Amino acid sequence: MAKWLVKKEIEFVSALKNRDVKKMRSLFNNVPTVDLAIFAEKIEDVSSLMFIFKVVPSELTADFFTELNDETQEKLLNTFSDKELVELINKSYTDDIVDFLEDMPANLVTRTLRLTPKERRESVNKLLNYKEDTAASVMTTEYFELHSDITVEEAMKAIREKGKKAETIYTVFLRDEKRTLVGTVDLDDLIFADPKQTLDEIKNKEFLFTHVNTDQEEVAQKFKKYDLHALAVVNNEQKLVGVITVDDIIDVIEKEVNEDVALQSGVVPLKDEYMETKPLRMALKCAPWLIVLIIIGIFSELVLSKFQEKLAIVPALIFFIPVLMDTGGNAGGQTCGLIIRALALKEFEVKDFWKVVWKETKTAFLTGAIVSTFAFCVFMVEFSIPGLIQTELSIIQKLVVSGIVSLALLSAIILSKFVACALPFLAVRLKKDPALTSQPFVTTIVDVCSLLIYFGIFMIFFATGFFPR
Amino acid sequence: MAKWLVKKEIEFVSALKNRDVKKMRSLFNNVPTVDLAIFAEKIEDVSSLMFIFKVVPSELTADFFTELNDETQEKLLNTFSDKELVELINKSYTDDIVDFLEDMPANLVTRTLRLTPKERRESVNKLLNYKEDTAASVMTTEYFELHSDITVEEAMKAIREKGKKAETIYTVFLRDEKRTLVGTVDLDDLIFADPKQTLDEIKNKEFLFTHVNTDQEEVAQKFKKYDLHALAVVNNEQKLVGVITVDDIIDVIEKEVNEDVALQSGVVPLKDEYMETKPLRMALKCAPWLIVLIIIGIFSELVLSKFQEKLAIVPALIFFIPVLMDTGGNAGGQTCGLIIRALALKEFEVKDFWKVVWKETKTAFLTGAIVSTFAFCVFMVEFSIPGLIQTELSIIQKLVVSGIVSLALLSAIILSKFVACALPFLAVRLKKDPALTSQPFVTTIVDVCSLLIYFGIFMIFFATGFFPR
Repeated sequence: MAKWLVKKEIEFVSALKNRDVKKMRSLFNNVPTVDLAIFAEKIEDVSSLMFIFKVVPSELTADFFTELNDETQEKLLNTFSDKELVELINKSYTDDIVDFLEDMPANLVTRTLRLTPKERRESVNKLLNYKEDTAASVMTTEYFELHSDITVEEAMKAIREKGKKAETIYTVFLRDEKRTLVGTVDLDDLIFADPKQTLDEIKNKEFLFTHVNTDQEEVAQKFKKYDLHALAVVNNEQKLVGVITVDDIIDVIEKEVNEDVALQSGVVPLKDEYMETKPLRMALKCAPWLIVLIIIGIFSELVLSKFQEKLAIVPALIFFIPVLMDTGGNAGGQTCGLIIRALALKEFEVKDFWKVVWKETKTAFLTGAIVSTFAFCVFMVEFSIPGLIQTELSIIQKLVVSGIVSLALLSAIILSKFVACALPFLAVRLKKDPALTSQPFVTTIVDVCSLLIYFGIFMIFFATGFFPR
Repeated sequence: MAKWLVKKEIEFVSALKNRDVKKMRSLFNNVPTVDLAIFAEKIEDVSSLMFIFKVVPSELTADFFTELNDETQEKLLNTFSDKELVELINKSYTDDIVDFLEDMPANLVTRTLRLTPKERRESVNKLLNYKEDTAASVMTTEYFELHSDITVEEAMKAIREKGKKAETIYTVFLRDEKRTLVGTVDLDDLIFADPKQTLDEIKNKEFLFTHVNTDQEEVAQKFKKYDLHALAVVNNEQKLVGVITVDDIIDVIEKEVNEDVALQSGVVPLKDEYMETKPLRMALKCAPWLIVLIIIGIFSELVLSKFQEKLAIVPALIFFIPVLMDTGGNAGGQTCGLIIRALALKEFEVKDFWKVVWKETKTAFLTGAIVSTFAFCVFMVEFSIPGLIQTELSIIQKLVVSGIVSLALLSAIILSKFVACALPFLAVRLKKDPALTSQPFVTTIVDVCSLLIYFGIFMIFFATGFFPR
C-alpha cells in the first residue's frame, strides 16, 4: 500500500508541474482525498495548488480542502476568487466550514461569512459560538430527519431523494409534529423491514441523545458504551439541532488523550502535531511547569538546610536522598497515572473517593512492604562490598541506617500514593482537569514530604538513643 | 437520562426477584442491552440470572451475555444446560464467542467448542489462534461479500435476503471469480445509485484493507485517517478472511491508551478495570518497576559517596540536589511523554530520529536558558533572605554556588531531553513498545547523570581556583 502511495505522490507532483488536467482529475478519482491533501501540504507554491481548484470539479475538491492543514488552507483562501470561495462553501458540510474558520484570521472569516448564503451563514455563526469541547462544537447540522409516522417505503423514497446532502444516512432521526426528537432508526433496520411498517414500529429501543453543552469526552464515552454510529444533539426544548458521527468521535478521543498525556508529562498541551510545533513555542510550553516545580522544590532546599548539622554527623544519610526521592516520586506517579486515566474513562466517580483511597492504602502498604524489604537487603549488600560506599559506619550503624532508609521508603510510598490519589480528585472537585495534577507535580510535592519523613525518622532514632554512636 | 436508568434498574431487580416474565421481556425490549448487563453484574445469585435466559428470547440475550463481565459469564456458563449453551452460541457473533472464550477456564472452552457446530468451530478455533493485538484478533468473520459484477438491484436483493447475519452491511465487500478481494461499496452509495449500475461502477475509490498480522494500533490509525466504518482483513493470498468494524476500533484505541498510560507511569498494564483489580495484584504490578529503579538508583548513591569530601567543604551544594534532580527528571518526562505519544500516533517514524533530536536540542537549549536564568534569580533571592538558608558562604561564594547550580540545571535539562528523546526510539529499534521507556525510568537515569554533571561543574570551578575560598 505504502509503495503505491509513493508512486501516486510522484504522479501528483508531476501532474501539478505539467499542469496535466486529465491526470489530476484521474488522481482525484482514484487516490484517497486525505492522501492527496498530505501530498499537497508539501507544495510551497500556492499558484500550483490553485490549478487543482481550477480544473478538478468542486464535488471532489471540497473534501480535499477540508483535509489540508491550517497553513495551506489560509494561503489558498487568500488566493481564491469570490466565485471559487462560493463554490467551495456550497460543496462543503457546515461543520467543515466551521472547523476551518475557527483557525483563520478575522478578515478571512468575515469574507467567507459574507459569501455564505444567508440560511447557512446562520448555522455557521451558531456553530462558531458554541463553547469549545462541547457536543455542539463537534456536531454537524446536515442530518437526516423524518416524521416518525411514515412507512418504511416512504422513508426509503425520502432518503433516496434528499439523503445525499446529509453527512450520514446510517442513522435516521425521527421527530413528531412539534419537531421534538422522538427516536432513531438505523438504515439496516429500514432495509430489512417490511415496506409497510411505520418507522415508529421499527425504531431503536435505545433512544439516546445528548445536549449541546455536554462535554465531548462524555459524548465519546456514550459512543463507546452503546457502539453508536451517530448521536443526536438536542437543545433545551428537546429539539434536534445537530448530529455527531463516529469518525468525529475518534478525533475527539485522540485529542483528549493527547491533552491528558501532555498535561501529565507537565507540558501545556500543544495545539499542533509535534513536528509542526516550533522549538521556541515548545520551550514556552515546557518552561512554565519546570519553573513552578522549582519554586515548590525550594521547600526541599529548606528541609536539607535545616538538617545539615544532622547530616554532618552521619554523612551516609545523604547518599540515600536520591533513591528515596525517586522511589517516592515513582510510586506516586504510578497511582497518579492510573487514577487520572480511570477518572477520564469514568471507571469511578468523585463520590467513590474513599473507596479508592482505601484501595490505594492497601496497595501502598503491600507495595511498600515488598519494595522496602528488598531495598533493605540491597543496602546491606552495598555496605558489605568493600570500597563501594565510602563510610566509616560500624556494622550495627549500617544496619540501622539501612533500616531508617527502608522505613522512610515505606512511608514515602504510602504517603505519595495517598497524595497522588487525592490530588486528581481534588482537581475534579475544583472543576479542573484531573490531568493537571501531573506526575511531575506529585513527584515534587512528595519529595518535600519524603525528606521530612526521612529526617523525622532519623531524629526519632537519634533522640531516643537508638542510633548507636 | 441517568434518572431514567436508575428507575429501570429498580424495575429490573424487582422483576428478577418476583420472577416477572412479562416485565423482564419488556425491559429487554426497551432498555439498552449494555445497561441491563451493568444491572445484572451486581446480582450475586446466579440462579436469579438464569431466570432471564429461561424466559427472554435468545435473540435478545445473546448480546446481553456478551456485555457481561468475565466473572458473571463464567458463573452463567457453568450453570447453563447444553441446550441453553447451544442456543447462546447460535445467536452470538463468532467474534463475541471468541472474546468470551479467551477469558474462560479450559474446561468451559472445551465444552463450548464441543457444542459449537463444526463449521463455526473451525472459525472460532482459527480466531482463537491469531496473535493478540493483531488485526485478526479484533476482526469478525460475519461480513457481507458480493460478486463485483452484479447490479445494484441484485445487490440490494441479496442484502435483504442474507445481510441480517453479517455484523455490518454498511460496507459491502467485493470479490472476483477467484474470491480475491477487489474493493468495497458503501451502503449509502448503493441506495443513491441507479439500480442498473454494476457494483464495479460505484465502488469506493479508496480500496483499503489490512493484513491479518498487522498491529491493531496501525489498523486504528487507518480508521482515523480514512474515516472508515469497516475495514477488510485479508490473508497472504489477498483473500478476505474477516472484517473489523469501527466500534471495535474505539475499544482498541482505549485499550492501547490504557496500556501506554500504565507503562509510562511505571506500572505493568492492568488486565481489568482499576476498581476490579485487587490490591495485591496492583502491588505486584507496581513493585517490579520500583525495585528496578532502586537498583538503577544505586549509581546515584555511589556518586554521592564518592563526592562526600567535596560536599563537606561546601555543604550548601547538598541543598540543591533535590531541585536539580527534580528539574532534570521533569524536563525528561515532558519530552518522553510527547515523543511516545507522537510515535504511537505515527506523527513521525524511526527514520526521523535525527530530525527529532535536532528539534529537541533546540527546545532544550531554549527551555534550559529560560529555566536556569529564572532559577539563578530565585537562588539569589533565597540566599538574601536572612535565616532562610543556613549557610556561612560569602556573597561571592553565594553567587558562584547559584551559578554552578544554574549551569548544572541547564546541562541537566539538555541531557535529560536528549535521553528522553533517544530512549523511546531505541525501544522501537529493539522492537519494544516505546511506552516502556517510561517517565520514571528516564527520571532515574537522568538523576545519576545530573549529579555527575553537578559535581563535575563544581570540580572544574574548584580545581581551576574559580571557587572563592
